[in-house]
Amino acid sequence: MIHNFKKLRVVGMFLTCLFSLGILGTTASAQIDLAALAEVDPDYADMIAAHVEQGVDYAFDFFTVSMLWTVIAAAMVFLMHLGFATLETGLTQQKNAVNVLFKNVFIISIGIVSYAVIGFNTHYPGGPDDWNGWIGFGGWIGDLNADPENVTYAYGGLELAMTAYGDFIFQAMFAATGATIVSGAVAERIKLPSFMIFATVFVALAYPIIGSWHWGEGWLNRLEVPFYDFAGSSVVHAFGGFGALACVMILGPRAGKYLAGGKIRPIPAHSFPLATIGVFLLAFGWFGFNGGSVLSAEPAALGLVFTTTALAASSGALSSIFFSWAVIKKPDLSMALNGVLAGLVGITAGADAVGPGAAILIGFIAGAIVVFSILFFDKIKIDDPVGAISVHGVCGIWGTVAVGIFNSEVSLFSQIIGTISVSIAAFAAAFVIFYIIKLTIGVRVSADEEAEGLDLSEHGEEAYADFQMKTR
Amino acid sequence: MIHNFKKLRVVGMFLTCLFSLGILGTTASAQIDLAALAEVDPDYADMIAAHVEQGVDYAFDFFTVSMLWTVIAAAMVFLMHLGFATLETGLTQQKNAVNVLFKNVFIISIGIVSYAVIGFNTHYPGGPDDWNGWIGFGGWIGDLNADPENVTYAYGGLELAMTAYGDFIFQAMFAATGATIVSGAVAERIKLPSFMIFATVFVALAYPIIGSWHWGEGWLNRLEVPFYDFAGSSVVHAFGGFGALACVMILGPRAGKYLAGGKIRPIPAHSFPLATIGVFLLAFGWFGFNGGSVLSAEPAALGLVFTTTALAASSGALSSIFFSWAVIKKPDLSMALNGVLAGLVGITAGADAVGPGAAILIGFIAGAIVVFSILFFDKIKIDDPVGAISVHGVCGIWGTVAVGIFNSEVSLFSQIIGTISVSIAAFAAAFVIFYIIKLTIGVRVSADEEAEGLDLSEHGEEAYADFQMKTR
Amino acid sequence: MIHNFKKLRVVGMFLTCLFSLGILGTTASAQIDLAALAEVDPDYADMIAAHVEQGVDYAFDFFTVSMLWTVIAAAMVFLMHLGFATLETGLTQQKNAVNVLFKNVFIISIGIVSYAVIGFNTHYPGGPDDWNGWIGFGGWIGDLNADPENVTYAYGGLELAMTAYGDFIFQAMFAATGATIVSGAVAERIKLPSFMIFATVFVALAYPIIGSWHWGEGWLNRLEVPFYDFAGSSVVHAFGGFGALACVMILGPRAGKYLAGGKIRPIPAHSFPLATIGVFLLAFGWFGFNGGSVLSAEPAALGLVFTTTALAASSGALSSIFFSWAVIKKPDLSMALNGVLAGLVGITAGADAVGPGAAILIGFIAGAIVVFSILFFDKIKIDDPVGAISVHGVCGIWGTVAVGIFNSEVSLFSQIIGTISVSIAAFAAAFVIFYIIKLTIGVRVSADEEAEGLDLSEHGEEAYADFQMKTR
Repeated sequence: MIHNFKKLRVVGMFLTCLFSLGILGTTASAQIDLAALAEVDPDYADMIAAHVEQGVDYAFDFFTVSMLWTVIAAAMVFLMHLGFATLETGLTQQKNAVNVLFKNVFIISIGIVSYAVIGFNTHYPGGPDDWNGWIGFGGWIGDLNADPENVTYAYGGLELAMTAYGDFIFQAMFAATGATIVSGAVAERIKLPSFMIFATVFVALAYPIIGSWHWGEGWLNRLEVPFYDFAGSSVVHAFGGFGALACVMILGPRAGKYLAGGKIRPIPAHSFPLATIGVFLLAFGWFGFNGGSVLSAEPAALGLVFTTTALAASSGALSSIFFSWAVIKKPDLSMALNGVLAGLVGITAGADAVGPGAAILIGFIAGAIVVFSILFFDKIKIDDPVGAISVHGVCGIWGTVAVGIFNSEVSLFSQIIGTISVSIAAFAAAFVIFYIIKLTIGVRVSADEEAEGLDLSEHGEEAYADFQMKTR
Repeated sequence: MIHNFKKLRVVGMFLTCLFSLGILGTTASAQIDLAALAEVDPDYADMIAAHVEQGVDYAFDFFTVSMLWTVIAAAMVFLMHLGFATLETGLTQQKNAVNVLFKNVFIISIGIVSYAVIGFNTHYPGGPDDWNGWIGFGGWIGDLNADPENVTYAYGGLELAMTAYGDFIFQAMFAATGATIVSGAVAERIKLPSFMIFATVFVALAYPIIGSWHWGEGWLNRLEVPFYDFAGSSVVHAFGGFGALACVMILGPRAGKYLAGGKIRPIPAHSFPLATIGVFLLAFGWFGFNGGSVLSAEPAALGLVFTTTALAASSGALSSIFFSWAVIKKPDLSMALNGVLAGLVGITAGADAVGPGAAILIGFIAGAIVVFSILFFDKIKIDDPVGAISVHGVCGIWGTVAVGIFNSEVSLFSQIIGTISVSIAAFAAAFVIFYIIKLTIGVRVSADEEAEGLDLSEHGEEAYADFQMKTR
Repeated sequence: MIHNFKKLRVVGMFLTCLFSLGILGTTASAQIDLAALAEVDPDYADMIAAHVEQGVDYAFDFFTVSMLWTVIAAAMVFLMHLGFATLETGLTQQKNAVNVLFKNVFIISIGIVSYAVIGFNTHYPGGPDDWNGWIGFGGWIGDLNADPENVTYAYGGLELAMTAYGDFIFQAMFAATGATIVSGAVAERIKLPSFMIFATVFVALAYPIIGSWHWGEGWLNRLEVPFYDFAGSSVVHAFGGFGALACVMILGPRAGKYLAGGKIRPIPAHSFPLATIGVFLLAFGWFGFNGGSVLSAEPAALGLVFTTTALAASSGALSSIFFSWAVIKKPDLSMALNGVLAGLVGITAGADAVGPGAAILIGFIAGAIVVFSILFFDKIKIDDPVGAISVHGVCGIWGTVAVGIFNSEVSLFSQIIGTISVSIAAFAAAFVIFYIIKLTIGVRVSADEEAEGLDLSEHGEEAYADFQMKTR
């Protein structure tokens, strides 16, 4: 097929003029003129004909635009992984930068491949009658376009305005997020192979199984008033945050972080520009994360979701700036950045289900929570270099509960049940996986390696090997 | 609602087959089959039915795709704020990097929230008969989707192919731009709280009021031949640029910049990679800024706007490279970067109203202007660390005037009236606001704080605290 | 035209209700109600009427959404140039960072402008009967929208769902890629003016002429089984990679790279975070590069292309991690990054023509190839600082051949003929151009300039002039 002369995939409404009775006069009725289409593009006409035979009368253009949005949103969510990579790298020490970047390249890669191999079909095991609502293992996706039903709007009996591949790729971009959240929390002292094994199991099995309780029509959807988590405050973010908590508890704090006498030594970020790039890219991608979760290009929902997402992020930042300034007496950039993310995590569960006023309030409360949560975890010696447990875990719970508060059709009780179940399950899964790894190959680098930095000890590379500077 | 099994938002043309008189044979006519739709998605069918009752016969799919473009463009404009943040940080000194980044996180946050609280309805106070054409204060947006008319294509009597939330979020992303432009010009010596107060008032009041003169159907639209500023060379960029000029005049130059005997000491950029990232992200986002200003997905306009935008940016860069090489005898990267932005600012007023040849010429002239303008302002001791006054102010005027030159339907006289009015008003507004702040809490850090850098003196943080390097 | 009150570009199916015979009851048939449309927007109605007169019965909304995707994809491909800029800068030495960034700003600028002046119409000289299949020079694009046929879906007799400007801008973003690939390979020792001349000729003439053999309906399309290169594994990537090889052979290695006794001295990357940003941005943009090459928003193709692109990139990364770890005994970040790109280059020729299993395999093999290819070229003293020859050249050939292996409708023989022809032609073109430049103004900086770094010797600027660090 020639690139620029490729058959045009035009379909749809070819107008055929017909004269009705003289009484009625001339009128043009729209229909898919399959004969005319077949001349232009026989393959396409066949596909449409097959659909029509199956009784699929669908609005092709709405389906097309919704599918386009799905794949664009998938690309935006992909960019969030660069956001995570730069945020984590920026907030940690220079001597571990290569290691953090390497982990992030690995996570998104194994995430996408494993989601094709097992994750997707485990995440969505079928309709409510097909499985027990707790675990329904699935396998390799196969060539989804081979089945013509998979390129119609309601593929697989689902009423989705996307093809099966569209569904897959959008969800695949989400899958690695859980492991990425953990990556930040365990940075600077974890053994690389141990993390790689953990991430693989966590993303390939724990994420789709626990996620299926809600998105796969599992038991959380069978509550009297179903659990509501629009784009994943719980099933993505709290999942990652409480998985991170389990790993940090097993791993212990970085050397020299908590000194004798309860003194906390701050370990400074090595590059705030890098961290800021990360947060802005995450916010940009979040418009795809939440916006794409509309699962179509329905205008009313899209406008609302973009607005609530932007307002919550903004108000989260303002709130974190305010509260951190009040508490630690200075305008702290890392708190402002965490405030943006806190607002985003907070609005994720209800971005389509609350109005702009509630969005500002949800973001504002999330921005306050994250400041105090970060200080709290530091006080109890849970060493989380990037604040992932607070941002994703604690604010993920808040966001889920908030939908129950601000939307009267959602049950606060179901929300609490759901978010606590998901958080506990993520914690337990991470604990078990990580503990087994600890017992076998170990999870922590030696004190010498930690002091030298993982870049040299694990990778034999430095992040800025050639950087040569004038001295002050 | 279940994520992946969510009701499909399909609407539109369900084909119903009907037999007309035997003479005619079978034909399928397209219509919205509300009965069939109601079975699939009752809420959606209700919405459509309500529209139809209101006599709204609209092309739903065109509306849908236009709205999708609106929100995607909004996300792209959001990313411009990362562009501004990295450009400003890269072009300033290392010791002020945290401060610059912090300001940028704050600006976009307060910009979006204040635009919801007061800006949007002040920017667009209504039709031409609703207000005086100079100032029309508006309030909180409210829950826009609550009114079903706000999710139709011509919401509020406007003939826009987007919902009210779509209109809001796209415009909200523009709003903070004016203050961000100022941020770069006043960097490295402004007091943080003073800037925060200035930015809030400038973005929440000055921007929407002055902008309403054109986009809100104000007096600039009531000129005999209406003023024309497609995406805001004047009402966004010159607005920001001349606001910046006022602030810099009040604030004075950085210490040590202008030495005795007329000597100018260049204060070098601390990271050109960061600055380059900023310019490319700005150019990427500008496709949303200009492209989204088509206010629909109309194919002819979109293709033209993307092309003129790209050509002007490219030719601006080539021009700045050429002229700066001729004048300062070296291929200067910061001038090349400013040339890209100059071309973009220059084409913004007429991106949909000139052809590709004019676009290249407009960009080329803008690229020349920016080189000489930057050198000029430095000579008269207006210290603008990032060249914002030249890029956004001077080239904003050029771009606005250029539409009057290259498009015969636009009045050169109206263009001059409009851009001068907006520039003077922005200058005056900024001058008054900033001068009041100077008289009350002051606007400039102490000489000691400036020498130490704002990162340590204002934030107690360093941008690269952990960065440890080999020495040369 | 008023920004926010602009005439709505609504078109399409205005429903007109009509009563058929009483037997049938009420039915609404869809048509373009031009009379109603003319009241809302007369210009638009005229355009549609003109189309209808020309017998163009097209699905306007499908055309609209496809055109929207085209311009969004163009913007995404634009962002790849930031990816190239940051990747190349990150992988080279600090003392040449300004130079690398400057070159990248220049390349995309000259690429877009020259594509308007000569490239586009040389790339697409017309239908198969209009030219000889080898060279068909074309000129300036002109004001494409002036011809109303250029804003219909099948403009110029091509069956494309985009306007002529849409076609232009998408292809223009591709054009500079070839020269950018060369830029990385020749970095750190090439004379700036020499590179600027080379890049101009290479992108303005060599790229469109060689590309026209396939995408312009040239001789490669007239093979018995036509050559197949979906988005350009050969005509973009191998083109750039083998052009790079020619230049590197003429230019020679960097001083101090290959020592006496066959010893290779690694010259370290100066910023791995920057390089990683580059690879992620390239991957993000590649969804536009491959996805946009569908040349419409056809749902089935889009879903497949996004999926195969993501899987090949991921599996390329995993493969490079595995093989480099096996060979050089450490988890190497630069190899992981090159693996992502190798997978992307590999899938580019067949992203729409293979299934997900084949995509994983193609990416996996590409990830292996790139590791051994980089080691091989280093062994034969071809000094390519960023691995461009291996990533784009060798993997470009692999990707093209792979379509012949994994898709039975594609001829392996045609693939080999095509990719070898393109690679040899690119090599020869680059060799001739670059050799002429060598004979006239020279291509290499002096040994002193190379030692000092191009930033100071060519630009008189430093990338991080103000960077002041604590010393270890």
